[in-house]
Amino acid sequence: MSNGPVAGLPPLAVADRLDALRALLDDAGVDALLVTGTTNVRYLTGFTGSAGSLWVDGWRAVLMTDGRYGDQAPAQVAGAGAEVDVEVVGSSDRSPVTALADGSARIGLEARSVTWSEQRRLANLLDGDPVATDGLVEGLREVKDDGEVARIAAAAAIADRALAEVRPALVAGAVEADLALALDHAMRTGGASDRAFETIVAGGPNSALPHARPGSRPLADGDLVVCDFGAVVDGYRSDMTRSFRIGGPGSGREADLLSAVLDAQEAGLALVADGVPLAEVDAACRTSLDAAGLGEAFTHGTGHGVGLDIHEGPAVSATATGTLRVGQVVTVEPGAYLGGFGGVRWEDTVLVTADGHRALTRSPKDP
Amino acid sequence: MSNGPVAGLPPLAVADRLDALRALLDDAGVDALLVTGTTNVRYLTGFTGSAGSLWVDGWRAVLMTDGRYGDQAPAQVAGAGAEVDVEVVGSSDRSPVTALADGSARIGLEARSVTWSEQRRLANLLDGDPVATDGLVEGLREVKDDGEVARIAAAAAIADRALAEVRPALVAGAVEADLALALDHAMRTGGASDRAFETIVAGGPNSALPHARPGSRPLADGDLVVCDFGAVVDGYRSDMTRSFRIGGPGSGREADLLSAVLDAQEAGLALVADGVPLAEVDAACRTSLDAAGLGEAFTHGTGHGVGLDIHEGPAVSATATGTLRVGQVVTVEPGAYLGGFGGVRWEDTVLVTADGHRALTRSPKDP
Repeated sequence: MSNGPVAGLPPLAVADRLDALRALLDDAGVDALLVTGTTNVRYLTGFTGSAGSLWVDGWRAVLMTDGRYGDQAPAQVAGAGAEVDVEVVGSSDRSPVTALADGSARIGLEARSVTWSEQRRLANLLDGDPVATDGLVEGLREVKDDGEVARIAAAAAIADRALAEVRPALVAGAVEADLALALDHAMRTGGASDRAFETIVAGGPNSALPHARPGSRPLADGDLVVCDFGAVVDGYRSDMTRSFRIGGPGSGREADLLSAVLDAQEAGLALVADGVPLAEVDAACRTSLDAAGLGEAFTHGTGHGVGLDIHEGPAVSATATGTLRVGQVVTVEPGAYLGGFGGVRWEDTVLVTADGHRALTRSPKDP
Repeated sequence: MSNGPVAGLPPLAVADRLDALRALLDDAGVDALLVTGTTNVRYLTGFTGSAGSLWVDGWRAVLMTDGRYGDQAPAQVAGAGAEVDVEVVGSSDRSPVTALADGSARIGLEARSVTWSEQRRLANLLDGDPVATDGLVEGLREVKDDGEVARIAAAAAIADRALAEVRPALVAGAVEADLALALDHAMRTGGASDRAFETIVAGGPNSALPHARPGSRPLADGDLVVCDFGAVVDGYRSDMTRSFRIGGPGSGREADLLSAVLDAQEAGLALVADGVPLAEVDAACRTSLDAAGLGEAFTHGTGHGVGLDIHEGPAVSATATGTLRVGQVVTVEPGAYLGGFGGVRWEDTVLVTADGHRALTRSPKDP
């Protein structure tokens, strides 16, 4: 086996991120933020443990975690070059937040990730009511630095190679769950630390379910098959969907569906560039599918950001209000699902660049 | 490949669970509960999607999900035999919660899982303030029915077989990450839908980190190695840790550590039976390690419940106040970690029975 980590990745700019966050605090109406989202904590500190919260104010950053991470946390924070103190908190200890909060009148909590229970506990500990903040760190995470792009690109390349490896097995008689496992294994042996999410291989009627789970049904000649999968490299994810028809696209209804959705994806991708409203990318895909009589069959949003989380900002949807920016990494993934018949989705992960965009997932689209 | 799902599993008693929850509502001070924890929604309805919330009051149960799950949700609910209506909600629709809440003065939210942001949104939608509930569904989930035990036992058996398969590769020169991948692959080909959590294979100095990630370091003769892993079968998980010394236990400090922690685990396991205080199981492990001079080296709790989540109730810890009950499935997993030297952990997943307990993980403990 040759399951080593991907080599030669450029460093992440972790050390710069705390100051970028500090610059947002005052506008958010807070003097300090208690970061409780584990992915946000990782982004700001380099710490990958499952339990930890991070206090950030104008001059301090303190990572609070438990005894299991007493060695790992300081090592990872130092490795990332982040100016963060680590405090190990026992279950019986008084929360260090009380001491840290002394003098900070306005303390923000991440309303999207903190549980109501934790908010109530902290509100009891603190003097004033905490302030709900919304997406401060998530907003920073939308624009990727070079190290992040390199990791997502490496994950995408691993997924591309895995599909090339497994593609010959995509034939009549093959079982969805076996194909999913083969993709997962090929990604791991190719250097991924994990799959980015539960791999979807959905054939025949299952292809009409956008989030189908691989089952035990053998593929049959003429089946549409949707393969949606990605890899993880150093925490960063890729996301790609390729659709096929067993036996080749042919010239029937399946071929029409495959090419109609591909046209929609190309219409969306053509717009991806700095400054373009996100809703216009969504509208381009939707208009294309509408023209093909498939508007109703497109039952989900057009895309999403990809990074440390498989779904992060920005959303590429009809209700999105922002615009694309250089450094964002988003998916464009229109689909059409016809219950009882089958479905098709085409998806790529692309980087917004100064002169348009660059696809990070690059598998051929030959159904 | 023979990666089919595990056959012959007895059905889950999903249909009984809603009434069991309804019987708790009044004591919790609510007339209705909005279930937002995805695992809790699955437990009560059979729906496995990643997005959905469940309204439960005295006579209705309504699962609200989005268009991606418009076909899957009704099919899974019907398959589980749950008396649940499914409502597909578009992003622009008014929340059905407003209509459902009409006339229900006291509406509970799951404070441990609902985010503060969602609580604020719902508080705005509803007339009265929502009521924080704590662990109602989680409490029901602590006691497993026969179908659940069968799934956890099947997952445990798959993990046992995977270790037997990979054990010969646990030799000097083997790489942690390769061994972790081999365990994962053996579990998947053995019928698991997934690993239960990120597999730990931690050798040498890494074994002293309770939650180490597998790295690229080759194992050396004399290294202590901690392998902590589990499988998933139909959503249910297993959890097991085995420790080894490369080259065999020998008779030095490693051998002493391996047997001292095994003594502690046996002391804890000996107490596992209906009616025994959880804290006594923890104390038995701790007392045993204290006597060996290793009390300070045991830096985490003794165990936890296992089921749809890898960590669920009851906690087996010094601060736990309850007692073990028939049908609970818990881990007993003392460890001792000596920074710079190495660590050892022994863990089994066991079922509390009418006459003591039964181990579900059964791999030999021959380090």
